[in-house]
Amino acid sequence: MPPPPFDAALVTPDAVVEAYQRLRPHVHRTRVFTCEQLDERAAHGAKRRLYFKAEHEQKIGAFKIRGAINAISLSSADHIVTQSSGNHAQAIALGCKLLGKKAVVVMPEDSPGVKVSAVRDTYGAEVRFCQPTQEAREAMSAELVQALRAQFGEDQAEEIHPNQDVRVVNGQGSVGLELLEQEPNLDAIVVSIGGGGLISGVATYVKSVNSKIKIIGAEPECAKSAFMSKKAGELVKNPPNTVINTIADSVKSSLGPTTYPVVRDLVDDVFTATEQEIEDATRLMMERGKQVIEPGCGLAVAVATSSQLYEKYPELRNVAVVLCGGNVDLDHLPWTHRKRKADEMGST
Amino acid sequence: MPPPPFDAALVTPDAVVEAYQRLRPHVHRTRVFTCEQLDERAAHGAKRRLYFKAEHEQKIGAFKIRGAINAISLSSADHIVTQSSGNHAQAIALGCKLLGKKAVVVMPEDSPGVKVSAVRDTYGAEVRFCQPTQEAREAMSAELVQALRAQFGEDQAEEIHPNQDVRVVNGQGSVGLELLEQEPNLDAIVVSIGGGGLISGVATYVKSVNSKIKIIGAEPECAKSAFMSKKAGELVKNPPNTVINTIADSVKSSLGPTTYPVVRDLVDDVFTATEQEIEDATRLMMERGKQVIEPGCGLAVAVATSSQLYEKYPELRNVAVVLCGGNVDLDHLPWTHRKRKADEMGST
Repeated sequence: MPPPPFDAALVTPDAVVEAYQRLRPHVHRTRVFTCEQLDERAAHGAKRRLYFKAEHEQKIGAFKIRGAINAISLSSADHIVTQSSGNHAQAIALGCKLLGKKAVVVMPEDSPGVKVSAVRDTYGAEVRFCQPTQEAREAMSAELVQALRAQFGEDQAEEIHPNQDVRVVNGQGSVGLELLEQEPNLDAIVVSIGGGGLISGVATYVKSVNSKIKIIGAEPECAKSAFMSKKAGELVKNPPNTVINTIADSVKSSLGPTTYPVVRDLVDDVFTATEQEIEDATRLMMERGKQVIEPGCGLAVAVATSSQLYEKYPELRNVAVVLCGGNVDLDHLPWTHRKRKADEMGST
Repeated sequence: MPPPPFDAALVTPDAVVEAYQRLRPHVHRTRVFTCEQLDERAAHGAKRRLYFKAEHEQKIGAFKIRGAINAISLSSADHIVTQSSGNHAQAIALGCKLLGKKAVVVMPEDSPGVKVSAVRDTYGAEVRFCQPTQEAREAMSAELVQALRAQFGEDQAEEIHPNQDVRVVNGQGSVGLELLEQEPNLDAIVVSIGGGGLISGVATYVKSVNSKIKIIGAEPECAKSAFMSKKAGELVKNPPNTVINTIADSVKSSLGPTTYPVVRDLVDDVFTATEQEIEDATRLMMERGKQVIEPGCGLAVAVATSSQLYEKYPELRNVAVVLCGGNVDLDHLPWTHRKRKADEMGST
């Protein structure tokens, strides 16, 4: 019997270490870098240093390849189905390519050509198009898994959830493991939260090594499932994806059955950032750090450099920030989009 | 007597080593990184590896701080004047700040606010505005130097030329020195050419250590002073800056009395790139390498990944590319600008 994919009890420090041994040959050990100009911005009068973990330079441009490799390795199935159209889809596609399995990615028929091309042409996955609704995606994924099982055998097809699958979460935890090897003397780690897979894996591992290191979550003001859940003492979901209006499109997901208990017990605090703060931080990292990051990643930079963080935790000196991804559409950067709208309004 | 600022004979390997000792405490030792996806693009069927020297992550976002520090250190003057409005201006401003001298930057009155702000507010230089012509800039700089000399003494004010001053060129050569320390087994180094300060310093040092390493220049098709000069056997200048229409605005300058002889004798070859090739390579580095670079730097990436280079030199295996700068206007990236024009034409 394969392990149940949703069970927070199976996210453990040992499982993270085993996941790392499994995925290490297939991923980059990303660098950790510092940037004086960002330190100045983050200091707010105190002495702070930010350590950036460069997962935007990871394969597929995001940490998601780690969890995907671990889950695909542990799956008995030869056919892996996913309904993501973002970084998880690319991670499943490349993961299957590296491990000699077959990926099928269900995408809405109105998906941007670049996303379809990355999954299909760059990483060789099969793409199936569906109506652009969440229901249609879920229905087609379930149908596909059933059809593949009927054809190849019960254990030969499965869908891997992007952030609630325990194998995925344990894989993402390897970001924390590498980070502590690279920078052992950290006071805090700031991580963006969408479905919570990354922060859950990182918190599980890091707290087991040094419980004094603060684990700080970052969420958009308009999609703060973790913030609300911690406040309410129970899992609170975000509105549907289509309703949430944030430039940080990679963190629209809500916590779920695997990640909520971990975030509740091991994440010390969650801060939110406004759209303007996310945009400013994304731009700051591009202008000063010369790194291309996506807004879902600028989110963590926004929180790490915010005055709120330091007013609440003035004692923090060495703060790591996970740069979780760099897959941004260079034709539609947040500020060029906004500037254009402003110009158009000015010209009419 | 201070040494004459324009004299190619004074650009020497020993002077580069001395410059490096002088400037090392004030600059970053930038990393060298590789990128599999760019290697694939560069390979053209062969086995190639590109080594990127990350001077876009240097202080002020470009290599120019190296030459500026060396020149300012060697100058007897307390007042340094420059008429640049680009990376050299920022380098002089920061260099003077770090070394406790006074910088005066002459800028055209129509300069973008961000450039004025960087020089004045970030690095604390004095800014003097002039009419937006080359003649006005030269006249005001000369007047300023005269006035400062009259006030403070003959040896207390001077203008430092951005690429013909030998102290500047020796300082830029430290890029080659660091590169060989970091990656000794190179077959070639590709460097963008504007005024030629960087490539002259690099070639002088590198050829003295290993004359087999090919030094390859990169120029825009529409500003190919080095290409034409090598062909003609004499210094050929580009058209005036205002006439040259290239997105690679940091490399519009021509070779001059110091750099022409070095380029003639020590640079093995010069390749040109079209505007489209420069744009594509700049975008490729941002999308795949996740690095923010300016088009004048994308130029070197374009040449390093071109089929022309490998058709002519199929034996090159380990090729370094100097990423010379990352100061690009994120509101006006080449492709968004072009896309917008196309959209506007389509909508009328």
